[in-house]
Amino acid sequence: MPAFQPIGSIHSPFNRAEEALIESRRSTAASQVELLPEYERGLQDLEGFTHDILLYLFYQAEPGYELIVKPFLDEERHGLFATRYPRRPNPIGLSVVRLVRRDGRLLQVDGIDVLDGTPLLDIKPYVPAFDALPEASLGWLEGRV
Amino acid sequence: MPAFQPIGSIHSPFNRAEEALIESRRSTAASQVELLPEYERGLQDLEGFTHDILLYLFYQAEPGYELIVKPFLDEERHGLFATRYPRRPNPIGLSVVRLVRRDGRLLQVDGIDVLDGTPLLDIKPYVPAFDALPEASLGWLEGRV
Repeated sequence: MPAFQPIGSIHSPFNRAEEALIESRRSTAASQVELLPEYERGLQDLEGFTHDILLYLFYQAEPGYELIVKPFLDEERHGLFATRYPRRPNPIGLSVVRLVRRDGRLLQVDGIDVLDGTPLLDIKPYVPAFDALPEASLGWLEGRV
Repeated sequence: MPAFQPIGSIHSPFNRAEEALIESRRSTAASQVELLPEYERGLQDLEGFTHDILLYLFYQAEPGYELIVKPFLDEERHGLFATRYPRRPNPIGLSVVRLVRRDGRLLQVDGIDVLDGTPLLDIKPYVPAFDALPEASLGWLEGRV
């Protein structure tokens, strides 16, 4: 397993999990993704995509995890892998964001709901043919999002 | 940064990158996701979701990366973060798959295009309200997928 390292960080208005409303609704808060200078060239042509996928570390989640959890959106308990709960064996978070503007190695984005200072692991272009499945059904989340 | 560890592995018919047609189209090949026994309880309620997001390690990609790459779908070179190219600073892959059936800790899925033996990092439910953006535009991929 390679040693993963942050490639930048995410600046958001959220300092506490309750503020971030994690996964409770698509946020419209404006946030910034700041790439470390050595990766800036890798952003070339990103502007052509309206949306990106960000992978990041759930860095304020307590270490460890439980396999059955009560997520924010429910009173019932569910298997961890049927939730987007942050305490996971590999605490990697994923958000689809809208790219508002690129200024060098700063991306202005909206639609993210992570805590300020979140370490960034990867940026990928969002490609509807691979990633957009509006017909997917919702399991226990039905009626909650 | 926590030490990431595989939670299982993905079995697919693909043994070489060319066969996997990585990112070239949504695959309909049947594959299996095998969770390690200690995580099986975390799959409870996953059956309610028709689709899942898998995060995995691009394990056969050569170590290292270049910031400008020529991806499979184009003759031109693009910034790495505007592609889904496997050699990345943090070589984490992402696929949305359809969950066909769960048998204990084995998930029968289709729509995946990864190599046989790929180490699994995470399973998340696919939630259209967060993840489905059919209106997203395609950047340099326009007309290619």
